[in-house]
Amino acid sequence: LNVGPSTDLPAKPPSEGALRVRNLGEFGLIARLQAHLDARLAASPSGRPALALGIGDDAAVWSPLGQARQVVTTDALVQDVHFKLSTTSWRDLGWKSLAVNVSDLAAMGAAPRYALVTLGLPGDTSLSDVLELYEGMIDLAGRFELLIIGGDVVASPALLLSVTALGEATGDLLRRDAGRPGDLLAVTGTLGASAGGLRLLEAGRRPGQGSSRLFEAHLRPWPRVAEGAALVRAGLRCGMDVSDGLVGDTTHICEQSSLGALIEVDRVPVDPALRAEFGAEALQMAIAGGEDYELLCAGPAAAIERARTELSGLGTAMTVIGSLTDPPTEGPLVRLLDAGGRPVATERDSWDHFRA
Amino acid sequence: LNVGPSTDLPAKPPSEGALRVRNLGEFGLIARLQAHLDARLAASPSGRPALALGIGDDAAVWSPLGQARQVVTTDALVQDVHFKLSTTSWRDLGWKSLAVNVSDLAAMGAAPRYALVTLGLPGDTSLSDVLELYEGMIDLAGRFELLIIGGDVVASPALLLSVTALGEATGDLLRRDAGRPGDLLAVTGTLGASAGGLRLLEAGRRPGQGSSRLFEAHLRPWPRVAEGAALVRAGLRCGMDVSDGLVGDTTHICEQSSLGALIEVDRVPVDPALRAEFGAEALQMAIAGGEDYELLCAGPAAAIERARTELSGLGTAMTVIGSLTDPPTEGPLVRLLDAGGRPVATERDSWDHFRA
Repeated sequence: LNVGPSTDLPAKPPSEGALRVRNLGEFGLIARLQAHLDARLAASPSGRPALALGIGDDAAVWSPLGQARQVVTTDALVQDVHFKLSTTSWRDLGWKSLAVNVSDLAAMGAAPRYALVTLGLPGDTSLSDVLELYEGMIDLAGRFELLIIGGDVVASPALLLSVTALGEATGDLLRRDAGRPGDLLAVTGTLGASAGGLRLLEAGRRPGQGSSRLFEAHLRPWPRVAEGAALVRAGLRCGMDVSDGLVGDTTHICEQSSLGALIEVDRVPVDPALRAEFGAEALQMAIAGGEDYELLCAGPAAAIERARTELSGLGTAMTVIGSLTDPPTEGPLVRLLDAGGRPVATERDSWDHFRA
Repeated sequence: LNVGPSTDLPAKPPSEGALRVRNLGEFGLIARLQAHLDARLAASPSGRPALALGIGDDAAVWSPLGQARQVVTTDALVQDVHFKLSTTSWRDLGWKSLAVNVSDLAAMGAAPRYALVTLGLPGDTSLSDVLELYEGMIDLAGRFELLIIGGDVVASPALLLSVTALGEATGDLLRRDAGRPGDLLAVTGTLGASAGGLRLLEAGRRPGQGSSRLFEAHLRPWPRVAEGAALVRAGLRCGMDVSDGLVGDTTHICEQSSLGALIEVDRVPVDPALRAEFGAEALQMAIAGGEDYELLCAGPAAAIERARTELSGLGTAMTVIGSLTDPPTEGPLVRLLDAGGRPVATERDSWDHFRA
């Protein structure tokens, strides 16, 4: 096994923090990360008897709980496309890469169980940065009783993270295609804070130099796991998480449910910190910003009301912002209306990473 | 939804084959790939009632069979690290990216069920190349009743594929840590053909210009799924696939089982096409080459004999090449011996993608 010092290693080995991935080698790095995860696992109070085999074999193995359905999602982040190392710390990046996947499980009403993490690393990446990245992942994982059970480490010209998250659903699911005409459309929490945090970061501001709420929303989003389960308990069957922006994601529900939607922009829960920082611009950012990781759901008024009660027990607000309709005969699937019922245009509906 | 023509699209749209990923946009490409997969799914004779929800929602969902254990693995390929587009076709690349993951499931004794495929694509990638890549994946998937149920598409400076494969094991598992001192060490098929194919490709030869067996072994490896299940039925409990090279992978078994190993090099099943092409060099390539995707296993002589009978029913040879021992007090875990029992040194044990 090729874990001895490589020929380009200096005579005196560098301190651990200064070690580069290139010095460690693929297997050396994997062994180091595995030890790091094992130590955390051993310290974790919650036993996981269902996991039969974790990191170290060709694959990981678990025994599903009773009749639980298995839920899987995957999401990748690429340096300078989805994040910049000038505006995020390695630790926050670790948190967020796992959080966005856990959010997809929450958006199905599923409980997170396991994750696989693939890292593409330039050879000059420092070990201390990679360990910081893992600290962020382990921090997020610990909040949700999620275990990292495998992954891959590869050399890559740019830093990239490809995460797969596995969960279990013992009840019904929140699906994008389960909307019905007349359903009310509602969203948890507030919108736009992440877009506001991104705007501040791009303007050169850093955490500590402005609203901590906006930075936190963008750098360390909190997946709505408990809320997803509560929506299912309340009888809701249609939902997803807001990652591409409110209009873009409502469009996804409309497409999958073969419906249209009306959103009353005055009802959109604009984040108060966003409004304080950006004033009149805040509404547009809340509608089109993206990366909120709130849950967007649709259902009959009675189920929405039950859900609102369930969520208030969790300290989470839920706001009705519009309704689903029969599909429009022309124009966009999602129409925005002002308080007077007049159509509103938006500058940009949704994120698309291949476009300028 | 941002799927209309982008501003940099020429007045006359290009033909479909000439379309670039940048012209389609992220959602346009996903919709196109989904339609491509759906058409194949509809044409597939085998129904999959266990799959509750496929591509198109936040996550995919399935109901496990009875008491089946769930098995998951992930493996990434990066352009110019793991493959070069000058020596592989897009279709072969699609096949191989899925095959190497299915091989990890086979190496557990599990049956492949589902896969998630994340593509990192430079913006100038042509749609026709991406569709060719998918054809290769669909071809491999069809041979093993595997379904592609999700994934992600992201912009990336280099082409990369990150695949997660999910399988089910109804019987026991083949584990790396289940070796016992005195176990015989055996390998399926022949070794070195993939390394031979790579050597030909790097020398500028192309399929059709030399042994088709060597090119095929490197470009379109066949995962030993039926063989993995047969090894479990025969009573073997220790095994893995040969991806890093025979010595490197035997070392993995030794590390996980806290043992040593002896390999008698004269018993290593060198691929006949490799020997015909490379003569005296062939043995070294068979021992250290990598990417064979044969199964390496260890067990008592009686179980190995039963396995050999099982495999001969599948038309697959199995060769005993050595044995597991107590861990050596010094030196490498895996020792190579010639026919006279004298130690043999190898030039290179194992692949490591961060090293030169």
